[in-house]
Amino acid sequence: MTVNLKNFFNPKVRMAKMGEYQELQPIEGLEISSVSADLYGDGRDDLTLFYFQDGANFASIYTSSKITSASINWNLKIKRHFVKALMVNTQNANTFTGIKGAQGLKEIASSLSKSLTIKSSQSPKGVSDVVKITDLLFASTGVIGEDFPSTKIKNRIPELVKKLRKEVNKYVWFKAASAIMTTDTRPKLAYEECKIGNKLIKISGIAKGSGMIAPNMATMLSFIFTDANIPSIFLKAILKKVATTTFNAITVDGDTSTNDQVSIFSTGKAKNSKIYNVLDPKLQDFEKALHRLSLNLAKQIVVDGEGAKKFITIDVVGARSVSMAKNIGFSIANSPLFKTAIAGNDPNWGRIAMAIGKSGENIISNKIKIKIGNFLVAEQNASAKGYNEKEVKEYMKWDSVNIEVNLNLGDASFTVYTCDFTHDYIDINADYRN
Amino acid sequence: MTVNLKNFFNPKVRMAKMGEYQELQPIEGLEISSVSADLYGDGRDDLTLFYFQDGANFASIYTSSKITSASINWNLKIKRHFVKALMVNTQNANTFTGIKGAQGLKEIASSLSKSLTIKSSQSPKGVSDVVKITDLLFASTGVIGEDFPSTKIKNRIPELVKKLRKEVNKYVWFKAASAIMTTDTRPKLAYEECKIGNKLIKISGIAKGSGMIAPNMATMLSFIFTDANIPSIFLKAILKKVATTTFNAITVDGDTSTNDQVSIFSTGKAKNSKIYNVLDPKLQDFEKALHRLSLNLAKQIVVDGEGAKKFITIDVVGARSVSMAKNIGFSIANSPLFKTAIAGNDPNWGRIAMAIGKSGENIISNKIKIKIGNFLVAEQNASAKGYNEKEVKEYMKWDSVNIEVNLNLGDASFTVYTCDFTHDYIDINADYRN
Repeated sequence: MTVNLKNFFNPKVRMAKMGEYQELQPIEGLEISSVSADLYGDGRDDLTLFYFQDGANFASIYTSSKITSASINWNLKIKRHFVKALMVNTQNANTFTGIKGAQGLKEIASSLSKSLTIKSSQSPKGVSDVVKITDLLFASTGVIGEDFPSTKIKNRIPELVKKLRKEVNKYVWFKAASAIMTTDTRPKLAYEECKIGNKLIKISGIAKGSGMIAPNMATMLSFIFTDANIPSIFLKAILKKVATTTFNAITVDGDTSTNDQVSIFSTGKAKNSKIYNVLDPKLQDFEKALHRLSLNLAKQIVVDGEGAKKFITIDVVGARSVSMAKNIGFSIANSPLFKTAIAGNDPNWGRIAMAIGKSGENIISNKIKIKIGNFLVAEQNASAKGYNEKEVKEYMKWDSVNIEVNLNLGDASFTVYTCDFTHDYIDINADYRN
Repeated sequence: MTVNLKNFFNPKVRMAKMGEYQELQPIEGLEISSVSADLYGDGRDDLTLFYFQDGANFASIYTSSKITSASINWNLKIKRHFVKALMVNTQNANTFTGIKGAQGLKEIASSLSKSLTIKSSQSPKGVSDVVKITDLLFASTGVIGEDFPSTKIKNRIPELVKKLRKEVNKYVWFKAASAIMTTDTRPKLAYEECKIGNKLIKISGIAKGSGMIAPNMATMLSFIFTDANIPSIFLKAILKKVATTTFNAITVDGDTSTNDQVSIFSTGKAKNSKIYNVLDPKLQDFEKALHRLSLNLAKQIVVDGEGAKKFITIDVVGARSVSMAKNIGFSIANSPLFKTAIAGNDPNWGRIAMAIGKSGENIISNKIKIKIGNFLVAEQNASAKGYNEKEVKEYMKWDSVNIEVNLNLGDASFTVYTCDFTHDYIDINADYRN
């Protein structure tokens, strides 16, 4: 079915058929609502609330940038491992917004805590549960350095809380994933199931991001929810491990945002047996499922990279260490010359060699083998024997291009995901704020 | 006067009036010729020879890439500090061309040494001077990984040597500077004079490069000639020092070439008194002149950056160390998001903040002041008081934009020069080889 986007979310979004997306399941203990605070001036949804009736364990990874948003600064001060809600706004990053930005966020937190406390007192349980401001997490994404629209946001909090619904069906997920978008052209959603002991565990995740995407969490927001019962400290360990080869293995432009955040929340409603050890074999299936889900979301971010027409997978194998493979992979993936060659369907593998060389890693030039798809294009410091450029050019016309660099020095490897560099990237970013 | 480009050099070059360029002077002891080996298939000049009748002292700086061209590998093996000639070809980088590329270069060297030996025997002095292959230097620039056209080049050597002329007037310089171009749209030339003791010293320099330009000598060739008499070892020390704030302070796309080379040659014909010490005060004026000339050429490279419409100067001041200032300067200059904002005349200074943050340097966010032109746009973690975006936008419409970042942490500073990122960069590079 086709969704009527006009009344639903970002009207700029590419018409998308719901059938193209995985159907996300509700996570028991989680309620969601999205509204418009009219931050974009066109009525699109820009404010989303995730509310855990009985709280949730959580873990986050934040940007490696030395300049961070007021929301990240807020979250870093939350020392508890149990929260009640996460609020996300788009359009304004609340970064470089000075004391006013931090103050505005505090007022929003205060207002949100009051509204949620009232809601909680109206629950069928009849137990009045005070929601403190330290029970709240925030995420912001959008323009840096413009006044944070705290009043506009605050005014919409009662409505946002009122609209919370327990029935988080696929449409609610779709609306939320769309409400957190900025220059994204498509919402990003993923769903996985697994078992912990004999209990079925659900994991639903959404993400946004298409510019400023680089290793170490670049303008990417991803929120993952599960009904598993896992202590926050173990969630953190698993999330960090999983992110290394998923969210931290992608790059669009090598730029790093001030606002990146990947968070996972577990409501515990699946009532799996208690986990006492992060190495508990019962967690293996969960880790694998979380990895699939994270890689899925990370790839969706790259596919939707600003102006991207092609998805590029770069496998660096035969390295002395993972860090060597990763460094070379990103050196290629972030090279504008490489990315523009891909955009032009040009098997100019010399630029891959150039990017390997500039990485500074101690390679041995005549051991390197470069493949584009299944075609060996270079070896022994030269063009490969029987290399047929026409054939490779044909292959490169596909939406998805694989590059393999074999350094032939060791057993370590790393895979980086990126996209090509097109006119549209320039269009989007030369005129981003208009 | 307007030069007739068609018969003269690269026909793709933008029509340029000679009057726009400095008039380069002949350097006594240096002869130059440029011919076409038809490597581009359109008859443009692509082969240039610089010949020193009585030899020259020299010093070079090469790319920091771990993968280097056959010509750089050749030059690195020359242990002498005195050479007879430099030959430059364009269109093919002779990189990743395997044993065949290295072998081809050796044959070219052998052929060139024979031709030059014959020429030398015909000199009015009547002294037959054998030119050995170890008296020769080479530079190549162009596509990586395609067979090196050594036969085509070899066949043109007799003509190239025959055309050498002592009268290196401004047209000969212009022709040579044009013959070494690849995607450049304009030749790059600069001239300076200075004194060593009571002798007038001339310095004439040319350069090429517009893509793969990054710190540490990226697809840039620059050849500088002087009639000064300076030992090679001191030339090297001065060149290295000067390059730090000139050729190594520019970036177009952050990519680093496999073929970069900056070389300086001194014929000694000015007969200045002998220099015994690199700290000799007599060299100060020379060093300053070489710095002016190098900065001039480096800036010409940036102005002609692939697709560039604007010249950007980034001053990072108030840093704890020069390396901190340099790292932050390049983090800004290489950010695609920053460069596209400049292309769009968008004073989106948030992207400057983002790039400062991602540098990894230990800044103190609320101490940073950012200026665009003379306009203070950000301080104390926020938009500056009285900041008028309209005014700044007006300023940004100029061809040349200045950015100042004051970290307010110390006294060190560094200036980086770069250009904006436009559609034309994509056009040039998506379709470079066609």
